[in-house]
Parts: sequence; structure tokens; C-alpha cells
Amino acid sequence: MAIQVFGDSISGNCLKVKWVCDVLNIPCRWEEVDILNGESRVPAFLAMNPAGQVPVVILEDGRALAQSNAIAMYLAEGSRLIPADRYGRAKVSEWLFWEQYRHEPYIAVARFQVVYQHRTFAELEPKLVERGHAALSRLEAATGESAFLVGEALSLADIALVAYTRMAGQGGFDLNAYPAVRSWIGRVEGELRLDPLV
Amino acid sequence: MAIQVFGDSISGNCLKVKWVCDVLNIPCRWEEVDILNGESRVPAFLAMNPAGQVPVVILEDGRALAQSNAIAMYLAEGSRLIPADRYGRAKVSEWLFWEQYRHEPYIAVARFQVVYQHRTFAELEPKLVERGHAALSRLEAATGESAFLVGEALSLADIALVAYTRMAGQGGFDLNAYPAVRSWIGRVEGELRLDPLV
Repeated sequence: MAIQVFGDSISGNCLKVKWVCDVLNIPCRWEEVDILNGESRVPAFLAMNPAGQVPVVILEDGRALAQSNAIAMYLAEGSRLIPADRYGRAKVSEWLFWEQYRHEPYIAVARFQVVYQHRTFAELEPKLVERGHAALSRLEAATGESAFLVGEALSLADIALVAYTRMAGQGGFDLNAYPAVRSWIGRVEGELRLDPLV
Repeated sequence: MAIQVFGDSISGNCLKVKWVCDVLNIPCRWEEVDILNGESRVPAFLAMNPAGQVPVVILEDGRALAQSNAIAMYLAEGSRLIPADRYGRAKVSEWLFWEQYRHEPYIAVARFQVVYQHRTFAELEPKLVERGHAALSRLEAATGESAFLVGEALSLADIALVAYTRMAGQGGFDLNAYPAVRSWIGRVEGELRLDPLV
């Protein structure tokens, strides 16, 4: 029996989970949840995740797990996506927590407001834009130093970070200003066998 | 040789790391960083953590690690603070990611604005207050169900979540409206041998 992934295809957070399953050949059944239509706020969904957020995974035994990066860590445990050494593992979690705190709230939110709430880039809150650029600048420095975020091989850190970084242009951020990030996106898309988005 | 924890004593994120060291008897040397005085933005600090955030830990071999919850996970690996079963471990990470995404940006930020930027609770952004209450409500439901967040024993989830929850009153949130949360705070403070804050 496959795990069930309740996710919205427009959400980078949900795509992370899909990609981990794809890369590791973990059988999963995708259940589309239309967040724009409020489907993550109905009682049946809230019973799975009281936080009302996608993605949620229902495991083989029926138990639920939420938070994209926690799900991804669970699925990737013991795989090549998590470094074998303790420090490497810790660096992967450092990137995952940084992503949810300093990257997603700006890069993903800007893209959501532009694409789905039809604001222009100029209408975005200046702090959102400033912090989005700060996140991209930090990634530019990191991706200029090594092929992938934690060493020279693809890890969960790259999957979690690429999800919304490759969509940053949709939110109005010009990725041409971040050439190392662009190259890294290409490398990660190659590993994930994704068509280039930018 | 002990690890060095670069942290600000006013920061719940930094205290998490201190408490994990205390509970697990991990030798650590605390290096005070005055964030209000800009000490986390100077070049020497940014060399340790380009994100410019406390806490940062310098391990015995000189390597740096950032993000409070990633540091806490690293230090607690293999200890009684991380459940032995895979699902329990995943629930702990679920809470840790939720804390940084749905709890800290509201509960900790409200407290920071009230205590250190001298705003009144009434002056806080309504969305901040609304989301802070949403976070506390979710904790109220969870702490009403079991003694600790993941099962019946203290885990890293309790340490990460209690850090700013016990300070919520400083930001103007009335914890009397959340009796299960209050009882849980008392239990966790007891385990950590902390003096009650509320």
C-alpha cells in the first residue's frame, strides 16, 4: 500500500514531497487539494492537520504527518538524500529550518501574491522584497561555493530550497541577478529530471 | 573541549540550545551576543552565520552550526529527547518546523515588539495577534490530549515550543485563556528545573 500525499500542485512545499518520493522510488498516491478553493480548511482536512496546511501525508498505517520539511526528512531517512555523517545531517536541517524561516515566507509569499492574488511586483510590501533578495543573496554565496548546498552531491537541502527558488521569477525576482543560483537550479532540476522553469 | 554557544540570553531560540545542553549534560560555554546592540550583524559574527541570527554553535572541531532547532536536533541526536521510533521522531520535527513557521513569527515577535520596542499590545499588527492566538489554540488542543507534545515524555518538541510560549504573556497574550497550555508549561519547566515564568 502506498502512502497518500495530500497536496496542491501549485505549492512548492507539496512538490518537495513528490520529488523526494520520485527520487527515492517511494510509492505514493497524490491527492489533489485545492487550497485556493479552501479545501485545506474543511473539517475533513483539519482532522488530518489541525494547522490547515498542505502537504499532509497519510502513512501506510493511517497515521498523519504534516510540515513539508518534516515529511521530507521522514521519507528520506537513511537514503542518499541525507548525509551519512552527523555534521552533514545537521547542515541539511539547518538549511531546511532556514528555508521555512527566511526564504519561503518571502519568496513563496511574493510569488503567491503576484500569481494568485494578481498584485504587481511594485505593489508588494517593501520588506517582503528586501527579505526575498536577502534570501537569494545568501543562496548566491552558498551555491557559488559548492555544486550543491551540502557538499558535492544532491541532498534534501537542495530539494527543499529549489522548490520556491526556481519559482522566484514568478514573484517578480529577477534570477539573472543571481547567476550561481541559476546554475544550481539547473543542476538540481537535472537531478530531479524536471523541465527547466527559468 | 566544550562547544561554544553564541546566544543572547533574552532570546528563546538561544535558550532552547542552553536547555538541551543542561538536560543532556553536554558541556557548553555560553558566549553572550547582544542582538539589540547589533552584535549579530558584525563581520566576525556573519562569518560564523551568514544569516546573521543567533544562536550559533561552534563545535569542538571549529565548525559552525546555526538555526536553533537544527542545533537542538544535532545535540539531542540519540538521546531521550528524540523518540526512538521513526514516526515519533517525525512528529518531533513536525512540531519544530511548525514552531518556526506558525508560532515563533507571531508569539516571539509580539513579545519582542512589546518588551524591546515598547509597543503596547493594542498597537501590534492585528494579523500578528490573530495568528499568535491561532498558535496558542492549536497548542491548547494538543496539550489537552497528552502530558507532552509527542507522547507522555519530554521531547525536543516541548523544549522548542515552551521557549516562547512561556513568554507569550510578555507580548500581551493572556495565557489564562489557555489552561492546558499553562499546565503543560509547568510540566516542562519542572523537567527543565526552571523557575516558573507565569
